Amino acid sequence: MPSLTEHEIIQHYFTKQDILRQDVLLGIGDDAAIVRLSGQQTLAIAVDTLVEGVHFLPNVDVSDLGYKSLAVNLSDLAAMGAQPAWFTLSLTLPKNDSVWLEQFASGLWSLAKPYHIQLIGGDLTRGPLTITIQVHGLLPANKALCRSGAKVGDKIYVSGTLGDAKLGLQVLLAKKLLPEPLKQHVLKRLYRPSPRLALGQMLLNIATSAIDISDGFAADLNHILVSSGVGAKVITADLPLSHALQTLPVDEAKILALTGGDDYELCFTIPPEHQAAFENQLQLLESPVACRCVGEIVATPGIELVDFSVPLTQYGYQHF
Amino acid sequence: MPSLTEHEIIQHYFTKQDILRQDVLLGIGDDAAIVRLSGQQTLAIAVDTLVEGVHFLPNVDVSDLGYKSLAVNLSDLAAMGAQPAWFTLSLTLPKNDSVWLEQFASGLWSLAKPYHIQLIGGDLTRGPLTITIQVHGLLPANKALCRSGAKVGDKIYVSGTLGDAKLGLQVLLAKKLLPEPLKQHVLKRLYRPSPRLALGQMLLNIATSAIDISDGFAADLNHILVSSGVGAKVITADLPLSHALQTLPVDEAKILALTGGDDYELCFTIPPEHQAAFENQLQLLESPVACRCVGEIVATPGIELVDFSVPLTQYGYQHF
Repeated sequence: MPSLTEHEIIQHYFTKQDILRQDVLLGIGDDAAIVRLSGQQTLAIAVDTLVEGVHFLPNVDVSDLGYKSLAVNLSDLAAMGAQPAWFTLSLTLPKNDSVWLEQFASGLWSLAKPYHIQLIGGDLTRGPLTITIQVHGLLPANKALCRSGAKVGDKIYVSGTLGDAKLGLQVLLAKKLLPEPLKQHVLKRLYRPSPRLALGQMLLNIATSAIDISDGFAADLNHILVSSGVGAKVITADLPLSHALQTLPVDEAKILALTGGDDYELCFTIPPEHQAAFENQLQLLESPVACRCVGEIVATPGIELVDFSVPLTQYGYQHF
Repeated sequence: MPSLTEHEIIQHYFTKQDILRQDVLLGIGDDAAIVRLSGQQTLAIAVDTLVEGVHFLPNVDVSDLGYKSLAVNLSDLAAMGAQPAWFTLSLTLPKNDSVWLEQFASGLWSLAKPYHIQLIGGDLTRGPLTITIQVHGLLPANKALCRSGAKVGDKIYVSGTLGDAKLGLQVLLAKKLLPEPLKQHVLKRLYRPSPRLALGQMLLNIATSAIDISDGFAADLNHILVSSGVGAKVITADLPLSHALQTLPVDEAKILALTGGDDYELCFTIPPEHQAAFENQLQLLESPVACRCVGEIVATPGIELVDFSVPLTQYGYQHF
C-alpha cells in the first residue's frame, strides 16, 4: 500500500465504524466533534497532541509550551463557535522535573484564566515528552460552525495576518534574519498564538463555514472546499501580511502566507448579503480583530490563486 | 525539592487553579471528572495514556494494544458507574504503518462495539509510540460512584480475581513458568482486561465508594481510604485468587494480589445493611461477575492486613 497521509489514515482506519450513535451530531473530520446533550446545549470536543522534536524544539520556553498546548485546542473551539468550559491534560514526561512543571503550569494558567476554562482531569506518565490536551466547549443546540457549509458566492475571510508563525520558525532556526522588533513579533506569533474565541462565537450567527489555520491557509481552506463540495478563487494580493512578512520578496511572503502553518487564525465564509452586517459586528467585539476578505467561493473545485504564478508543491504541513 | 510521586505532582502543580466553575461537580482526583449539563444528566470524563516501553512492550500484539487502550479507560467509567457514550483517540506513531493501523483499529472496534461507544475525533501525529484515549460517559444527575463515600462499617468488595495481570507480566518476562492453560489465562488477563461496566452501573444505587484497580489493590483501596478519611481491615485469606495464583506459595500469591496492578477489577464498599440486596442484584446481571467481600472499613487510618506478616515495600505501581 502506498504511503497514506494523515487524512487518508483517519479516513481509512478510523471513520468506518459499526457504532453510529444518534447523539453524535458531528463525528470525525471537523475542528471538533459535536454531541447532543439532553438539554438545550451541545458539546464540542477537540483534542491535540504536541510531541517534542515534531511540534516544538527541545529548547522551547516551557511556559510558552504550556500556553501553546492549550491555545491550539482553544483555537479548535473558536473554529466551531463554541464557548470553552473544561479541559483535560495528559502529560508524558521523561523525568519528574519540578522547575519544568512549575513553568508549564504557569503558561497553562495564563491562558486558562482569561477564558475561564477549568482543568478537570488528566493523566501523568513517564516517557518521551508528549502533551495531549482535550477541550470541551458549549454550543447552543442546533448551532455550530462546520467546515461543510460554504456556498458558491460566499466571501472568504481570514483573521489577523498569515505566515508569521512559519517565519518565526525560520528565524528560530537561523534561516532568516529580521530586525529585533519584527523578530520578537513573529516569535510571539509562533509561541503565543491568540485563539480567536470571541470572533468564533460571533461568527456562529453569520458565517457559513469556518476552520482554524493550523496546517496552513491553503491546506485548511482546502478542507472547507472539500467538505463543502466547492472551490475558491483567492486574490493573493489581498492576503493579510504583517510588517515582518512585508520585508520579504513578495512571492516569498505569499508562499509563507499561503502555506505556513501554526498561525491559529480563523478562515471562514460569509454570504455576500451578510458582509456589511458582519463588518459592523466585528467592530462591536470587545477586542476587535482585523479580518480581511481574500477571495470568494466558486463552483470549480480546487483553489485558483489570482496574481500568483509560483507552483505550490504542497498546500501545508503533512504529518506523514 | 525531593522527588514527587505522580499524585504529589498533580496535587502540587495542577489542582491549585484560579478557575473554579460551578458546573464542575467533581474535578481532579477520582477515576473520572464529572460536569453538570443543562438537562437531567451529568458527564463523566476520563483519560489514559499508554506509552511504549512503559505501559506495554514493543513486541505486544497490536490488536491487544488497541483493545487494552480503550479497556483501561472504560474501566474508569465503570468505576464511576457511568454508561459509555463517546471517545477520542490521540495516536502518536513513529511511522505510517498500515498493518499496525489495521490491527490496532480491529482491537479497538472489538471492544467499542459491544459497549456501543463511538469514536468521535482525535489527533494523529508522528513521534514515539503513545496512545491517549479519552472516554465520555453519561450519568443520571446527582449520582456517581466516588472514592470519597466509604463509611466505617462498610464491607470492602472486589470483583473477579486479583494479581493475574502482574503474574501474566512475569510469565511474559520469563520470570515465571506456568502450565499452558494457566499461562494463557493470565496473559489474557494482562492483554484483554474486562471493564466491569454493568457491575459499576448496578453499584450506582448501592455502593458508597468505588475505584478500579489499575495500580494494585492495596494502592487503589488506599485512594478510597484517603479520600474518605477512613482505614481498612483486609482479611488476606479472603483475597480472590485465580487457579494460576493458587499454584504459587501463599505469601507470594498474596503479595501479587495486594500489589499487582493492571487487573482493572473494581474495588468498592457496601453498607452492611445493603449486603444481602447487593448479593441478590449481582445474580441478576446479564453476565454476572463474582464479587468477594475481603474486609471492612474501620476508623483507624491505613490498611491492616489480617493473616499476613510480610512487610509491603510499596502498595503498587508508581510512575515517578
